[in-house]
Amino acid sequence: MPAVKPFDLSVYVITDNRLSGGRSAGEVVTEAIAGGATCIQLRDKELFTREYFYLAEQIRELTLEKGVTFIINDHVDVAIAVKADGVHLGEDDLPAVAARRIMPPHMILGVTARNLQQALQFQEVGASYLGVGAVFPTATKDNTGQPIGLEGLAEICCEVKIPVVGIGGINASKAGSVILAGARGVAVVSAVVSVPDIAGATREVAGAVKEAHRQRRS
Amino acid sequence: MPAVKPFDLSVYVITDNRLSGGRSAGEVVTEAIAGGATCIQLRDKELFTREYFYLAEQIRELTLEKGVTFIINDHVDVAIAVKADGVHLGEDDLPAVAARRIMPPHMILGVTARNLQQALQFQEVGASYLGVGAVFPTATKDNTGQPIGLEGLAEICCEVKIPVVGIGGINASKAGSVILAGARGVAVVSAVVSVPDIAGATREVAGAVKEAHRQRRS
Repeated sequence: MPAVKPFDLSVYVITDNRLSGGRSAGEVVTEAIAGGATCIQLRDKELFTREYFYLAEQIRELTLEKGVTFIINDHVDVAIAVKADGVHLGEDDLPAVAARRIMPPHMILGVTARNLQQALQFQEVGASYLGVGAVFPTATKDNTGQPIGLEGLAEICCEVKIPVVGIGGINASKAGSVILAGARGVAVVSAVVSVPDIAGATREVAGAVKEAHRQRRS
Repeated sequence: MPAVKPFDLSVYVITDNRLSGGRSAGEVVTEAIAGGATCIQLRDKELFTREYFYLAEQIRELTLEKGVTFIINDHVDVAIAVKADGVHLGEDDLPAVAARRIMPPHMILGVTARNLQQALQFQEVGASYLGVGAVFPTATKDNTGQPIGLEGLAEICCEVKIPVVGIGGINASKAGSVILAGARGVAVVSAVVSVPDIAGATREVAGAVKEAHRQRRS
């Protein structure tokens, strides 16, 4: 297994240019970090590689300044080029096994898993963490299929050794239950990036996550 | 300067899924190689990375079998993952300087140059060859601007040390003039991949290129 740097997935904010009401990714990320995001994933399926690269360079600077983990969606080449902390791969992206082969061993590899079988498979090929879901129903991504629920999430968290981030339909009121089901963190998109007060919404999620981790330890 | 493997750019065929009349990239490439293509560039701006990766694996096998140089358009990560011979970057792709930094030094880096200034700049940052054009008017790509003509091409071929491939509106009847202007090879898209007999059309281009190289040597 590759030795990646320590990373904090507890409040994992994913940007989405289509949901941010015209605000730039830089603005969204700055606000999310101010609200307590511990990890930022830059997602944009519409930009050309060149534009995405320049945006990624900018977010790399912002996150480095604040000591926040920075994950690139899909583009492994861009992740390596801008020295992101890691890359996250969904089912339309480079296969995890191919990505792990070409990535520096210290780089974080996150993979989306929809069920236990996938989770075990991606752990086997060198994933550093798993994004597991959709936990709850969500309108953010198409074709995510039937939500796996807190039970499905808990089963996967039990069976794998690498950290799990719950994703899909998570907001401040549901974040605690995701952590109590065994997830290390919660990934949020629309609950945070589509509202007027991004920092405030992130702060609420971060508070719920912190409280649930405290309960889990006690 | 990186030491790349020897490569033959003389008959450089670029696939285009929108121009191939429903024929698969595998079919197009097989025919083009049968007609004498010495280099294949796989271009598809519409596929998700995952699908592009599987297609690239397939074309890598085909080209390896026939000893033909294989170049990936845009996706540096896929190029590395499938062990392509190289990558070609246009103006919407990863900047050449960033790509060179993350590519294995033996891998070919091709870059599109529209004028002498760009040509010298890309040579400086480690391009292995340049795709220069559009030489003639073309409908294949949008926004290529005013064609540079054979004079513009000849000027660049004179001034740079790395091989140049002419691109843009080239067919069998124009291929010879591109070589005589100083280009090492000709890149063809629609003249070859959009016609019923891909092998035949490639053969005509290859014949014209060979004859012009013979004239240049004598």
